[in-house]
Amino acid sequence: MAVNTILMDFSVKSSKLQNDQQEELLTKVLENYFPQLFKVHSRSIEDGGYIVLFTAHRGSFITARSFPQGLLTINIEYYKNESDEELISFKCITLLEKELAAQFGKVISNKFPPLRRGGVARYFPTSDERILEYDIDALVFEEMSPFQKVQIVHSRTLGNMLILDGLQNLSDRDLVYTETLMQRGKEDYEGKEIVILGGGDGALLHELLKENPKMVLMFELDDVVIKACREHMRECCGDSLDNMKGANYEIVVGDCMQSLEIMINEGRKFDYVFGDLTDAPVTPTPQDETWDFIKLIISTSVKILKPQGKYMTHCCGVACTGAAKMFEEQLLSLNENLEWSTATAFIPSFLEDWLFYQVWRKDPAN
Amino acid sequence: MAVNTILMDFSVKSSKLQNDQQEELLTKVLENYFPQLFKVHSRSIEDGGYIVLFTAHRGSFITARSFPQGLLTINIEYYKNESDEELISFKCITLLEKELAAQFGKVISNKFPPLRRGGVARYFPTSDERILEYDIDALVFEEMSPFQKVQIVHSRTLGNMLILDGLQNLSDRDLVYTETLMQRGKEDYEGKEIVILGGGDGALLHELLKENPKMVLMFELDDVVIKACREHMRECCGDSLDNMKGANYEIVVGDCMQSLEIMINEGRKFDYVFGDLTDAPVTPTPQDETWDFIKLIISTSVKILKPQGKYMTHCCGVACTGAAKMFEEQLLSLNENLEWSTATAFIPSFLEDWLFYQVWRKDPAN
Repeated sequence: MAVNTILMDFSVKSSKLQNDQQEELLTKVLENYFPQLFKVHSRSIEDGGYIVLFTAHRGSFITARSFPQGLLTINIEYYKNESDEELISFKCITLLEKELAAQFGKVISNKFPPLRRGGVARYFPTSDERILEYDIDALVFEEMSPFQKVQIVHSRTLGNMLILDGLQNLSDRDLVYTETLMQRGKEDYEGKEIVILGGGDGALLHELLKENPKMVLMFELDDVVIKACREHMRECCGDSLDNMKGANYEIVVGDCMQSLEIMINEGRKFDYVFGDLTDAPVTPTPQDETWDFIKLIISTSVKILKPQGKYMTHCCGVACTGAAKMFEEQLLSLNENLEWSTATAFIPSFLEDWLFYQVWRKDPAN
Repeated sequence: MAVNTILMDFSVKSSKLQNDQQEELLTKVLENYFPQLFKVHSRSIEDGGYIVLFTAHRGSFITARSFPQGLLTINIEYYKNESDEELISFKCITLLEKELAAQFGKVISNKFPPLRRGGVARYFPTSDERILEYDIDALVFEEMSPFQKVQIVHSRTLGNMLILDGLQNLSDRDLVYTETLMQRGKEDYEGKEIVILGGGDGALLHELLKENPKMVLMFELDDVVIKACREHMRECCGDSLDNMKGANYEIVVGDCMQSLEIMINEGRKFDYVFGDLTDAPVTPTPQDETWDFIKLIISTSVKILKPQGKYMTHCCGVACTGAAKMFEEQLLSLNENLEWSTATAFIPSFLEDWLFYQVWRKDPAN
């Protein structure tokens, strides 16, 4: 089931029409496109604009709002079953747009593809809150874990996609994400001891195990993520989540902070620690702010690094310069004499470039 | 300038509330989030649902439409200057969503990131009419040519993007598009004679010239596209559009059908003909339907191919299976004993896989 919402805009700044003339014109034109058009309500708004509410055939409604800044918006909404004809075709919408623009005096117009509401979620935001509509045709998995809403959906283009609390995390087509996170080809994992914080989708574990490490320990909080990905994200995790323990890896379900404390108490040191938590990490470790938590994660991780060891993590979309600056401030504030390099990669399913950090101690002799 | 439109949906199928109870609850909750909320109009719709129109502070308005199929949609709209605070923050929207969902009885809810209307166009459709919001921060070029609206916009992630008649064509980051079209590494262009039909962005010409062809002839209809790309799409076309003629290439501005006819009359034959017209080609050659035009293009192109020559073209988004089938039917209907191979590539700026064809005569001896 779906409600279709069609949005059209007209920049009418240069139009010489008065509000009542514009409204009259608008009504006349709409009547040609919408049978049973009925002006339900019309009123002036204090700002100098107006709003009109129409109803029309098949239970549709239309609002027209003229803003005094010179923008007229038209919203058309109706219910459409899968088998129903469109109330108004894209071609007709284009004609309507052209006719209105001409009537208003050659104004600039714009329209959105129909937005579909209800049914499987198809729209997810980028890191800078832009909207992307994915070609999602099925909800593959959904479960409310104690920590977050875990969904796996299927996209015709991107394969399966892991969605956590309504945010897109990883798709079958995002190998470049994991390869940039681990700096494949630049870092040597053979015979190395590695910790992954988070990483419940199994993609990083799977790729690291291909490089013959001595041992990989993965600390993931949410068992539901592991369960969902083990079954539905095999393109990413392969068989790495099938067993919680293997010859050279172990998956520990629990709070990574607790696991880190245990490592510190045991005096264990690692060549690499990966921060592969979600961008807004879920945690039972009480913290006021996300940044406090991230700082805690880094400072604790550094304590279990060998002198030449590295902390590797994804950070944010390249567009979010504020977040990157904040991250570097956290690194500096630790007084651990840290240095870092960065790498970026275009992540197919994100439609944006992502920023990754590699952090190490400047003077490992100390 | 921008109008922000916020859309929220609630699947209320399992809710036991009557229309009037639901409306009352809704009004009470909205009052907590929107100062000066005023119910302007409310009415039952014949289908058994209802619609309410509210106005609120800062000239905002809200519609709530309950559809009898079990979906309640809420649309919030207001004008926002660049420097204005949001009328309602994303955090508040999330709270509102949760509160309403709880009040209605644990229903499924969904919300869109705010849609921005007016100003530079940021939203473009994919080939299967999905909406993508690009991080566009500037309109670089705009001119109405005799054939189409030519725009170049700047995206922070993708660089400059060529937009023709409101459809996204090519971005600075789409080298894979051109390389798949020409099957770089699989086809050998050294010393070859080549025709490009269309290709006004110069990307294909630029990449072909790197492979030492004997001669490339490019027939582009729209001089405005060449002019715009020469200046603003240099990441794609390099200096290939700077001169209309070089040692081993020539750009001819005009109807490619006329140019093809001249080639046929002169008896010239080529190793490769590229169909690099837009997906909905603009043409002064009168044709009833796009498919008739595409068929005409292919049949004419085949006439100027050497026996072992190839016709290379982009076709459509992989999702548009109907278009691919139609294309192959055109190939078969030509009775030219054609064979073909296909290739696909994920085009970064499209957020979809694109389909390319390589066509040749089955039995070149005849």
